[in-house]
Amino acid sequence: MKISQLGEFALIDALKQYAPVSKSVIRGIGDDAAVLPYSKSEYLLFTTDMLAEGTHFTRRMSPQGIGHKALACSISDIAAMGGCPTFAVVSIGVPKNLPVPFIKDIYKGMERTARAFNVSIVGGDTIKTDKIIINIALLGLVEKKYLTTREGAGPRDWIFVTGPLGGSLKSGRHLIFFPRVPQARFLVENFKPSAMMDISDGLSGDLNHILKASRVGARLDHASIPRHKGASLSQALNDGEDFELLFTLSPAKARALMDWQAKARSFYFYPIGTITADVKEKINSKSFAHF
Amino acid sequence: MKISQLGEFALIDALKQYAPVSKSVIRGIGDDAAVLPYSKSEYLLFTTDMLAEGTHFTRRMSPQGIGHKALACSISDIAAMGGCPTFAVVSIGVPKNLPVPFIKDIYKGMERTARAFNVSIVGGDTIKTDKIIINIALLGLVEKKYLTTREGAGPRDWIFVTGPLGGSLKSGRHLIFFPRVPQARFLVENFKPSAMMDISDGLSGDLNHILKASRVGARLDHASIPRHKGASLSQALNDGEDFELLFTLSPAKARALMDWQAKARSFYFYPIGTITADVKEKINSKSFAHF
Repeated sequence: MKISQLGEFALIDALKQYAPVSKSVIRGIGDDAAVLPYSKSEYLLFTTDMLAEGTHFTRRMSPQGIGHKALACSISDIAAMGGCPTFAVVSIGVPKNLPVPFIKDIYKGMERTARAFNVSIVGGDTIKTDKIIINIALLGLVEKKYLTTREGAGPRDWIFVTGPLGGSLKSGRHLIFFPRVPQARFLVENFKPSAMMDISDGLSGDLNHILKASRVGARLDHASIPRHKGASLSQALNDGEDFELLFTLSPAKARALMDWQAKARSFYFYPIGTITADVKEKINSKSFAHF
Repeated sequence: MKISQLGEFALIDALKQYAPVSKSVIRGIGDDAAVLPYSKSEYLLFTTDMLAEGTHFTRRMSPQGIGHKALACSISDIAAMGGCPTFAVVSIGVPKNLPVPFIKDIYKGMERTARAFNVSIVGGDTIKTDKIIINIALLGLVEKKYLTTREGAGPRDWIFVTGPLGGSLKSGRHLIFFPRVPQARFLVENFKPSAMMDISDGLSGDLNHILKASRVGARLDHASIPRHKGASLSQALNDGEDFELLFTLSPAKARALMDWQAKARSFYFYPIGTITADVKEKINSKSFAHF
């Protein structure tokens, strides 16, 4: 059997099968970031993202945008756990014939984003490859009381997203999105979501991850799903690379959030559906397939 | 200018130039691993290594060996700082047409090595690429008193290596080497090396990194450099991928180590030269150039 017949999630399951995990690991493979011991009050978060020329970007795109995206994907993973990013290491595979300014501009894009989110870049590796490959591994910290995973969504919880969806790749937004760290921190500090993740592969597929981890179902109100200008419902449901946060709140907290945002103007959160007890109520998904 | 004219170290310097670093970073880019705050008595170590098909391995090699090597390179970096490895995240780029057993065997090789060194694999990313790419980011811990960097080698210190050198790639040893964690821990606990690193690019070039960081020179006793069977002096000096440790000890500690190993049989450390005060005494190097 070839990789193309197996699919990405089966590959991740295979890695999980062969991944030794000590008792000190609070959460290993299967969420936006791993959760590891750190201090009495905090957990260490650890995530990795690989981007490849031809799959995630092309040389005709802005190199600063590519550098930004590589780091921002990982920052988004840390935000999805309720945490703040801290330290990153960067591996880059570069083709021999690549003009030096292109790679420097990738670094510059990373630098700007790192500064914006107080991330220190503390290490790296540089190797020769046929196409540009970027891997970022990122650490973060989260107070134990604020840790939010994909588990924990309960029946009757409301489902929210942090912003409009669809058409990220086509519009070029995937190169300039701003990871939702402030929103995530606001939420965990004030409304403690029951579950949270970032939308990287598409709302429908990613919501199914929450449903599976939390052993629940969901009903979406299609008319309520916020869409980017020009994006169809199907694009809002299935396009990847939006990096908005998807989270659930108990009915009481959901109503409190709606009350708060009727008055406040700092953030807006969009209610798009509800969690149900019926695990068979999955979301029809045509999300991004990596293979 | 193209990457091929610039060279790897200039690329790393470029990354360093664009790497924001907060005050909490104890040591950023420029050693085997970054040194970060952790607890009252320990530092967190953080390193990343990328391996590419065609550059570091081919499909004709043992996939389990490839998986082993990918993780063992990073474990070696943690050992070089005096620490113990703890948690890893694994990113893999896989071609569509790759047979699934090949990738599972890469995972199996990693798993075995992870178990041997008490490393937990806690996360991963899987993407589509044209050639196989593996990135491992690894954390470790080191007691503050045992941290050993590339700085600190002083005039008259003895230079040691942990084992014979040369011909690692040709012999296939690069797929089965055993990272020198036990030796590193024995050294930091008993003899506190003044500087240490692992030999990944070749003895000559890597020793120059210690000389530069410590602002000293060195003289090697060529006849004392231990070589693998069939390896020439030039290969022992310049071949990469041996992953032995290179370290320096004050004259008193060096003599104590020699006395110890005249009786003991657990490890053997090879004295190969001395540090000098003359920074102009660099080592002639034909070490592995990545571009």
